[in-house]
This record gives sequence, C-alpha cells and structure tokens, in this order.
Amino acid sequence: MVDTAQLMENKVFMAFTSYATIILSKMMFMSIATAFYRVTRKVFANPEDCASFGKGESAKKYLRVDDRVERVRRAHLNDLENIVPFLGIGLLYSLSGPDLSTAILHFRLFVGARIYHTIAYLLPLPQPNRGLAFFVGYGVTFSMAYRLLKNRLLL
Amino acid sequence: MVDTAQLMENKVFMAFTSYATIILSKMMFMSIATAFYRVTRKVFANPEDCASFGKGESAKKYLRVDDRVERVRRAHLNDLENIVPFLGIGLLYSLSGPDLSTAILHFRLFVGARIYHTIAYLLPLPQPNRGLAFFVGYGVTFSMAYRLLKNRLLL
Amino acid sequence: MVDTAQLMENKVFMAFTSYATIILSKMMFMSIATAFYRVTRKVFANPEDCASFGKGESAKKYLRVDDRVERVRRAHLNDLENIVPFLGIGLLYSLSGPDLSTAILHFRLFVGARIYHTIAYLLPLPQPNRGLAFFVGYGVTFSMAYRLLKNRLLL
Repeated sequence: MVDTAQLMENKVFMAFTSYATIILSKMMFMSIATAFYRVTRKVFANPEDCASFGKGESAKKYLRVDDRVERVRRAHLNDLENIVPFLGIGLLYSLSGPDLSTAILHFRLFVGARIYHTIAYLLPLPQPNRGLAFFVGYGVTFSMAYRLLKNRLLL
Repeated sequence: MVDTAQLMENKVFMAFTSYATIILSKMMFMSIATAFYRVTRKVFANPEDCASFGKGESAKKYLRVDDRVERVRRAHLNDLENIVPFLGIGLLYSLSGPDLSTAILHFRLFVGARIYHTIAYLLPLPQPNRGLAFFVGYGVTFSMAYRLLKNRLLL
Repeated sequence: MVDTAQLMENKVFMAFTSYATIILSKMMFMSIATAFYRVTRKVFANPEDCASFGKGESAKKYLRVDDRVERVRRAHLNDLENIVPFLGIGLLYSLSGPDLSTAILHFRLFVGARIYHTIAYLLPLPQPNRGLAFFVGYGVTFSMAYRLLKNRLLL
C-alpha cells in the first residue's frame, strides 16, 4: 500500500488539499444560491419544478428567465472555467516539489481572488473589481503552469 | 520511479478510480445524448452544423432552441457543477487514508445519486426526485470536504 | 515526506503533467477570447460591465447577445465538458502503470484533437471537421476509461 500518511506529510500537498477543498466548497455554494433565488423569486427552467405552484397553464408562467438567477449562474460557470484549471495545474504543481512558501502564496492568492470575484459578481460591485479578481486568479494559475512546463516538460 | 503498483494496491484509491471513471463516463454520455437529440430533431446552434440539411436561408430555420435539447444540456451542466467537486475533493479524500468501508459508502452513494439525477432529469420524473438526488450527491461531497478540513488543515 | 522527485521521475506521470498543463492553458485562453470579443464588439452580459460606455439607458443597449461571443462561449463549454473527463480519467490512468508509448499516444491524440476542435469551432471550418475532432478526443478518453475499468475495478 502507498503510505498515504507519507503523502499527507508533504506540506505543499496538505496546503493544496486545504485550499482546493475550500474553493470547491465555495463553488458548491453557488448551487444553493441559484436554488435559493429560483425558489424565492419563483423562476424555474423545468415544468416539473413549478408543479407545486399551480397546475397546467398557471404553472407555466414560472418558466422564465430572471436577471438575478442568471447572474448567479454566470458566476457559477465562471467559477467552473477557472477552478478546473486551478485544480488540475495546482495538483500537478503541488507534486512537482515547489518551495512551500511560494506554493502557499499561489494558493492563498487564488482562493482570495475567487472569493472576492464571487462577492463582486453577486453584489455587484462596479468594475474593475470583478475584472481584477478574475485576472489575479488567472495569473496565479498561469504562473503555476509556467513553472510546471519550464521544469517538467516531456512531450 | 514511484511504485505505481503500490498506489494501485491502496484499496481506497482503487475504489475511487473505479467510481470516478464510471461517473465521468456517464457524464460523457450526455454529449452523445445532446448530439442525438440535435440530429434527430434538427436543432442546431451553429450554421455549419445544418449545412447538410439545405443551403443558405433554408438551413437557417434549423438554428433554433428546443426544450428537449436544452433539458439534456442543463443536466450536463449540472453534472459538471457537481462532478468536478466530487473529483477534486474525492481524490484528496482518498489519499488522506480514510476507512475503506466509509469511503466506498461515500462513492457508491454519490455515483448512485448522480445516475438517478440524470434519469429523473431526462424522463423527467416529478419533483422532488431530482431535488433529492441532487442533495444526496451534494451531501456526500460535503461530508468528504468536512473530513478533509477537520483532519488536514494547513493554511 | 513523499519523495515527489520520485513521482516526477515516473515518465508517464511527467508526460501527463505536460499535456494536461498545455490543454488547460489552451482552455484558459478561451476566457481571453471571450473578453476580447466582448470588448471589441461591445457586447456585455452585466450592466456594470458597460458602465464605461455610457450612463443609464445609453449603456443598456450593450446588454445584448452576439453570434461571435456565443460561439466562443460554446467552444469553451465544450472544452470544459471534454477536458474534465480527460483530467480525471487521464490522471488515474497515468498512475495505473500503463506502457509509456501507449500513454503518450493517448495524450498527444487528445491534445491535438482538442486544439483542432477549437480552430474548427472558431474559424469556423465546415463540418465534419469539428465533429471528427470531438470524436477523436472522446474516443481517447473512453479508451483510457476502458483500460482502467478492465484492470482495476473495485466496486
């Protein structure tokens, strides 16, 4: 058996585990936010979802699009588009033996930027708050990708 | 070289491998389902996709939106939103040395819930079938995240 | 500590790291492409994004949908739907001790097919260019999933 206790004694990997779990939990929260707005605003995408609000034609009026719900959905999709590269590249980066303090700086910046991005998207804050948060997260992932490709290229 | 035979002798990791591969294959099937409905119902999003059904203006009528296709696409996006956290958190959880039977219970519940979610979405079954399936999968991922953060936090 | 130098001496894992980082960087480029078209074509999804182009009502006319932007967004979502299974299944496949040349063939085909898919989507090239690129990537992922499930099933 692999000594997984060993892998978990790797401090960079432990830090990656912590930050990845936190940012994925934040992303999962977006599903709850979407459901919350759908129910409180009675805005649904599927006929079966609004069956409890009326039958037949009277329920169909709830099959609509709402600015608030679409905003949460855009924030959620943006999370997916940015957290997936962070997970993939970050995991490989963690296993490539980086300096602990450099690695933690990357993880902290990314998680902080994505949480700020969500706040800026949902309130919303005026631009360039959201744009800057996006580019900080983007830059962090790119920096990890650059270090990986510089040191470990095998094509 | 890492003794990958060793890593694969880790039973929790092998179980995670099996369940993750199954649920990702299921997710990939959604692409086929979307393509199937697009072709059989002649509903396309790109002009080049319907070129074989006519030229110029006569083809443009197939650039439309269809309830059935949108339903599959929503199910696919919901899969992405939920399977990505399961993959990330589940992988780290598998490597953190959990009890085998507890881990397998988590994986089985998640995979079962997501397959049921797809069935409930595509048929569709009346609510709360789909909602319950969603929350079972959600709860499983959250339970793994909680165990990770409780035991292995390094910030 | 896990000897991560050891893990990185595993050539299959190093190759997976290289190809995964490349294809994730390509996927991240889609965000830049979307932003580029949004700004040059003045097509926005959020009121706060077009505030610099006018105030109040005059800015609202930029809240619109554009063919070009939607095309990039569809390509991006298709990337997500296909690269996530590749990442998950490919990582587990890399750790399952496959033959190096077989593994590299899989990775090269996938990355080549997805890059061609993006070119075919954005230009756009006539079908079946994009369709074929999609199915090559799909087949590669499925082939890795098949090998994993054949050798390492634990349910």
